[in-house]
Amino acid sequence: MRFTHETLGQRAVFASGEAPAAVAAEVAALGARRVMLIAAPARAALADRVGADLPVAVRHDEVVMHVPVEVAERARQAAAAGSVDALVCVGGGSTTGLAKAVALTTGLPIVAVPTTYAGSEATHVWGLTEGGVKTTGVDARVLPHSIVYDASLMLSLPVEMSVASGLNALAHCVDSLWGPRVDPVDQALAGEGIRALALGLPAVAADPTGQEGREQTLYGAYLAAVAFASAGSGMHHKICHVLGGMFDLPHAQTHAVVLPHVLAFNAPSAPGAERRIAQALGSPTAGEGLAALRKVLRAPRALRDHGMPEDGITRAVAPVLAAVPGDNPTPVTEENVTALLRAAWEGSEPA
Amino acid sequence: MRFTHETLGQRAVFASGEAPAAVAAEVAALGARRVMLIAAPARAALADRVGADLPVAVRHDEVVMHVPVEVAERARQAAAAGSVDALVCVGGGSTTGLAKAVALTTGLPIVAVPTTYAGSEATHVWGLTEGGVKTTGVDARVLPHSIVYDASLMLSLPVEMSVASGLNALAHCVDSLWGPRVDPVDQALAGEGIRALALGLPAVAADPTGQEGREQTLYGAYLAAVAFASAGSGMHHKICHVLGGMFDLPHAQTHAVVLPHVLAFNAPSAPGAERRIAQALGSPTAGEGLAALRKVLRAPRALRDHGMPEDGITRAVAPVLAAVPGDNPTPVTEENVTALLRAAWEGSEPA
Repeated sequence: MRFTHETLGQRAVFASGEAPAAVAAEVAALGARRVMLIAAPARAALADRVGADLPVAVRHDEVVMHVPVEVAERARQAAAAGSVDALVCVGGGSTTGLAKAVALTTGLPIVAVPTTYAGSEATHVWGLTEGGVKTTGVDARVLPHSIVYDASLMLSLPVEMSVASGLNALAHCVDSLWGPRVDPVDQALAGEGIRALALGLPAVAADPTGQEGREQTLYGAYLAAVAFASAGSGMHHKICHVLGGMFDLPHAQTHAVVLPHVLAFNAPSAPGAERRIAQALGSPTAGEGLAALRKVLRAPRALRDHGMPEDGITRAVAPVLAAVPGDNPTPVTEENVTALLRAAWEGSEPA
Repeated sequence: MRFTHETLGQRAVFASGEAPAAVAAEVAALGARRVMLIAAPARAALADRVGADLPVAVRHDEVVMHVPVEVAERARQAAAAGSVDALVCVGGGSTTGLAKAVALTTGLPIVAVPTTYAGSEATHVWGLTEGGVKTTGVDARVLPHSIVYDASLMLSLPVEMSVASGLNALAHCVDSLWGPRVDPVDQALAGEGIRALALGLPAVAADPTGQEGREQTLYGAYLAAVAFASAGSGMHHKICHVLGGMFDLPHAQTHAVVLPHVLAFNAPSAPGAERRIAQALGSPTAGEGLAALRKVLRAPRALRDHGMPEDGITRAVAPVLAAVPGDNPTPVTEENVTALLRAAWEGSEPA
């Protein structure tokens, strides 16, 4: 037993239907008097509600995917010009990412109010894009001081996107179990995340307006982010990253298709992870549990349905081999990676 | 779903057999140049080893149970006189407690090296005693910055004390599940702690010099402390506190005897906790799993064997009723608390 688990200090407030009061309490506890409220124009009405009881000094709505540096710079200037002492961001990963970019250079505390299951709010990872190149890094200052999770804010997320985003969170949990820096605490949190997502996602699919399914999914997505940020990307995310970049595939669908194939690939060599997933899914084996869950959710099955060309299989093998962590449970070879990619492309049963 | 989970930021370094190097790395990462090394005289040789590669400015060995204020004051003066910039404590709960007392007024960072399964190192709870009265409080400054867990340091702990201390950690996990501030994250961590302790303790009992049993027990005790500090004392710890105070009973034995009775008392009203314990113990029911574990460990069975008088049953009922949290899963009455105390006193099977 040799590992270092770094627990990141953070408050996670689960307050369904009560985000405005919960955010106001967090801001008050920080002693903040001049808040910069960040939300994309599409979230303006929601930001109005969340900000109603806050001492808002600056409203900022220039939110751009992948946080271009010039966008980050304008947000920092707005924060300085408004002499703000705290950041409140309402939105998905790009909005949280912009708040993090401001915190990175100013040290201002963040109260994050997520509206998707992306999970950035629970990590100290930041990302900035310059000239089409994304740089990421880790800094304690960008970790939000508090998160306010309000499941009622998720009701606007369409059910298909909710399921795709939730399956992405599930992939974070599963891939954490054999991530390059994984430790037993990560594994326990990932297992709990799988349990919550397996409860929540079918409930969301069955009743998109129901609160309990959204709550469990949000809770699972939170744990997924905590575990994944600590354990690091495993084989699954490396493959999805390669395929997404080469063939411009849709993010969430790629994750949903690839996950069962990576699970089948690694499970025989990772019996502890296999047991944990099976137990969390309440199933005899991890593979059966995931298959049952994907069936209920009508998850996508084949990458060829989402724009990947057949000759992409061969082309992707080398970059995948280069990207998979060296300590992946089942060693990767040209042959077994080719077989995995073909199965994911044609949508056959995971072998 | 309405809760706030406050995660405390901390580094937990598991480094069996490598405490000196691991402590030196943590101290170096803090940028500390003048360390105060705290250890009781009985741990002097161990402190020598741990301190060999540290910039030690002050050695301090006045460690007293329950941290009397005058002892704390002398340690603070020693820290000030030595212009120290970090505290390294090597020992059990009293030693960690003294380091916390210094950190409380100075803000100095702590690197804690535990030699028991007490768990104080993973909490932000401090305690001080003045005129026989113990005051406890919570302060972010007393949470150690880093913990270095080295299972080889536990080898000096006699097997009987190891088991008693480990059962105490198990009680922390179980009681967390219905603690007054319990949330789902606490429950997940407590479940993982139970799993680890159920693996580790029988291994320690079977082979006291084995490393793996000590490692699992140490890992479980760490999670127990994290979960318990967040969830707060439930019925079990309230009863043990009352009995310990009234009849001067030995701490660990009292916990070992009382735990199965509280579990039997609450399990029917707390099915989620019951399931989690059963699953963590790999047993059909929580009660059966705990009974099997206690049998393997030859855990004590009756409070009458440890100094509690028979008339103590009646005398303890009122203070127990007053101490049990109002939201305990099974409501307490004079009748059911009397029955519980009698069963624990005479060592009968938990009902």
